[in-house]
Amino acid sequence: MTGTGQETDKTGETGETGETEQETAAGAMPWLTPPGRRRLVTVSIVFAGIPAAVAATVLTTLGSDGREPGGGHQDFGVVAHFLLAAALVLLAAWTGGRLAVRLGQPPVMGEILAGIALGPSLLGALSPETMRWLFPDQVRPMLSALAQLGLVLFMFEVGRELAAVRLRGAAHSFVLVAVASMSVPFATGMAAAPLLSDGNTGPAGAPAAFALFLGCALSITAFPVLARILTDLRLTRTLPGRMSLFAAAGGDGVAWLMLAVALATAGGQSAGALALTALGAVAYCAVLLGTGRRVLLGLPALRRPGPAAGILLVAGVAVSAAITEALGLHALIGAFLFGIAWPPGHPVADAAAERTNSVARPVLLPFYFLLFGLTFDLGAAGLTWATAGLTGLLLVMAIATKFLGAALCARLTGVSGRDSVALGILVNTRGLTEIVVLMTGREAGIINDRLFTVLVVVTLITTLMTAPLLRVTGLHPGSAAGELPGGRAGPAFERVGERRGAGEPDLTGHLERRDPLEQQLLGERPPGVGDDGAE
Amino acid sequence: MTGTGQETDKTGETGETGETEQETAAGAMPWLTPPGRRRLVTVSIVFAGIPAAVAATVLTTLGSDGREPGGGHQDFGVVAHFLLAAALVLLAAWTGGRLAVRLGQPPVMGEILAGIALGPSLLGALSPETMRWLFPDQVRPMLSALAQLGLVLFMFEVGRELAAVRLRGAAHSFVLVAVASMSVPFATGMAAAPLLSDGNTGPAGAPAAFALFLGCALSITAFPVLARILTDLRLTRTLPGRMSLFAAAGGDGVAWLMLAVALATAGGQSAGALALTALGAVAYCAVLLGTGRRVLLGLPALRRPGPAAGILLVAGVAVSAAITEALGLHALIGAFLFGIAWPPGHPVADAAAERTNSVARPVLLPFYFLLFGLTFDLGAAGLTWATAGLTGLLLVMAIATKFLGAALCARLTGVSGRDSVALGILVNTRGLTEIVVLMTGREAGIINDRLFTVLVVVTLITTLMTAPLLRVTGLHPGSAAGELPGGRAGPAFERVGERRGAGEPDLTGHLERRDPLEQQLLGERPPGVGDDGAE
Repeated sequence: MTGTGQETDKTGETGETGETEQETAAGAMPWLTPPGRRRLVTVSIVFAGIPAAVAATVLTTLGSDGREPGGGHQDFGVVAHFLLAAALVLLAAWTGGRLAVRLGQPPVMGEILAGIALGPSLLGALSPETMRWLFPDQVRPMLSALAQLGLVLFMFEVGRELAAVRLRGAAHSFVLVAVASMSVPFATGMAAAPLLSDGNTGPAGAPAAFALFLGCALSITAFPVLARILTDLRLTRTLPGRMSLFAAAGGDGVAWLMLAVALATAGGQSAGALALTALGAVAYCAVLLGTGRRVLLGLPALRRPGPAAGILLVAGVAVSAAITEALGLHALIGAFLFGIAWPPGHPVADAAAERTNSVARPVLLPFYFLLFGLTFDLGAAGLTWATAGLTGLLLVMAIATKFLGAALCARLTGVSGRDSVALGILVNTRGLTEIVVLMTGREAGIINDRLFTVLVVVTLITTLMTAPLLRVTGLHPGSAAGELPGGRAGPAFERVGERRGAGEPDLTGHLERRDPLEQQLLGERPPGVGDDGAE
Repeated sequence: MTGTGQETDKTGETGETGETEQETAAGAMPWLTPPGRRRLVTVSIVFAGIPAAVAATVLTTLGSDGREPGGGHQDFGVVAHFLLAAALVLLAAWTGGRLAVRLGQPPVMGEILAGIALGPSLLGALSPETMRWLFPDQVRPMLSALAQLGLVLFMFEVGRELAAVRLRGAAHSFVLVAVASMSVPFATGMAAAPLLSDGNTGPAGAPAAFALFLGCALSITAFPVLARILTDLRLTRTLPGRMSLFAAAGGDGVAWLMLAVALATAGGQSAGALALTALGAVAYCAVLLGTGRRVLLGLPALRRPGPAAGILLVAGVAVSAAITEALGLHALIGAFLFGIAWPPGHPVADAAAERTNSVARPVLLPFYFLLFGLTFDLGAAGLTWATAGLTGLLLVMAIATKFLGAALCARLTGVSGRDSVALGILVNTRGLTEIVVLMTGREAGIINDRLFTVLVVVTLITTLMTAPLLRVTGLHPGSAAGELPGGRAGPAFERVGERRGAGEPDLTGHLERRDPLEQQLLGERPPGVGDDGAE
């Protein structure tokens, strides 16, 4: 319905509502002298009739003897194509996420698989023309822009989430488990690197970079995906739940540091240049986390609510990413560091971050999954015995080292056997963080496409197995009404409150306070929508 | 500060907080047997010492004899460049907006001028190399993606805003003024078109398309910018304020319809193809606004709060834009229509639209201003007497027809002289809507670069003059404490409530209810931030 239609409608309507009411209303408006009927008709003719007649005359006189058709019109096709591709990506990601939830998996796994489905692994294998038509070369940089923006904002959020975890005052056992769940897979990956480097190293892969990268790849635990699984299985307030989240937070921080070292090494820089990069990195960290946060707090943009804080956030992330890139680190490191520097617990800063994330997470990140899916070609890896063997080997290594590192260490520091097993299963979640790490390593030329594909498969399998494994082993409280099977009615599963010991990190409080954000981060609920609608 | 640092910190911290408290806390946790000191040391050595030793050994053995440096690293430069350009665009737009507010102008004018400043008109004129370095060819499609997404979401919001204005039951005078403020400039533009077509028509410009386009270009009143000016000058609840907003809402609807006709005509299609386009357009409108809204309301995404509604919105806008583009209309028309179809007053739909807009408006639309600024070259128009004369002529035409159409009609239908003058000044605001119309006409080849530049200058001048003109003429209540100068203590400036007549459209209620959105739309305040911070 157009404006004209509405206006005609309305003029008709007014007649229907009754002339008397109309007159009375006009009478009650002393500041608006009602025009007489004759005046109305005259005015209508002058201001509607005559202009309409003029326009009609001009149009009739001119005819439509078009010249060269489609002058500057060539750009529209690209824009329409871009919009169509964008809609497809969003709907595919959403559908994948919903399906994943139906299957008891975190939605992000469905979104990642949707990205893979749109790439050469499925759609491209079925119909390469359709894939090329949907995502033509002209449109890819446009989709990539959304992906990159989504990715740096995701890294910002990861940094922000980690910074909010209170690491101080944690019990020795928490610290030891966190270290073990990181160090065992990391050292194993590094030790195995010399044996695996043949046929798997990328074009830029110095052996040291390759080893560091493999260590990282095996030791990542995805904080956001893990938090999502814990929420779904109501394990957030359990001892293994809290221990695994703490381990994921600490481990991810270390892993990103190691990845930065690996990337810097992969650049093939001289020792001097490497030292300079390291110096620059340390200096930038010191400036950003030392004075940077204070500068941020002093800015007028964070003093009162408004879109200024959101613009500051996005611009700051972009600038920080560009700075670390210029320093020889990866752009993602800068985004991550800016997330750590973003003032935690500050109402305006928090609101801006949550608002930005509530749109960026569901609307921009799916484009990264597409970019990933277009890169990832399951068929190209070649289903040889060698590839299958490598996949199996890395899968066993990934699962065994994570499980043994965390579970054994927990058991030795006094955690019960059942809780230790649950913990070992939980820290095996690699999820989205690992995908980002792998994409980064492939782009930097540290690993080749084959190892990339193999490690993606390992990531998908280890992440997908977490929730079912907890269900199958009965190690989640959903089955036994808040109680671990095994006769031990668990204070571990009670609501913590006064019961929480002084040595235990305040992860639960953090999660309780940030539950809506958590859910929103994990694609479940946006902020500002009110809690009434959520069950 | 990295994870490692934090962990070391924390281990130290725990010692500081006192071993006794630590022991007590552990004692209060019956489910966590505290490990002995010797056990702790052993576990630390096994899970931290040995892995560290392994990693160090591997690294030392491997050395860093890098192979070919920078294998797949070429892509990073582009991403970092894109992020840097993005940050610059956001900061420039924000600064421009703040400066505009300081100068008593709506912020969007500052953002538009910031876009122009980054283009060939200023930065490119001063240093073409800097401009090319900042926005290289590889990065432009990426920036364009953000611009296009921002633009369609803006058009969606314009459609949504217009749909929320209750047009039914408006007094005759409101309708007549709306028609006159549109029809007089439109007819004048069309009548002048044959005289102006030489040297101004674009490559695709059929005379009829040119005439229709010129009519549109002269008759646009920018609804969002006008609303912003009214809010700033506290004129929202006055008679001229309400009349001008009503006129802008109705007029914009008609203008977009006319623009669609002009664009379809410009395609150089045959009469049959044109008829088909028209048929397709009418059919699409009928389906979208008839059953489309009902289908939307039936979707699970709109049944409960969540990111699903936001994804539906963005995907729907993109699909609708692609459909109208495929029908031979412009993509923007589809986005606009989807905004009209988006269920008004629906809590979940409204929340999703406001959330999306709170990020898209400040973060994405500045990229459209950049795209516009890069297109607009003040220098290239050539400051000849002919160009200056054309600018002057169109400026006078634009101002005179808008002013006379609205003010004269208002006076003749019983509005006081002062209010009529204020109204005439208000509807002259062309703002962002006009910029979008001009960009569209230039891209479609209806007008050439010269006329584009001239009309942009006309747009900027007419929009910039509105607020100062109201201040200078004393026609705003800010100077006289809610009272129009001239002795008439104005019920027109009182809070409307019971006083509002039945024949007057409920624009004020709409604005009052949507005030936060209004401000947010205009770049002042985001939703969900709480009103406490705003003064």
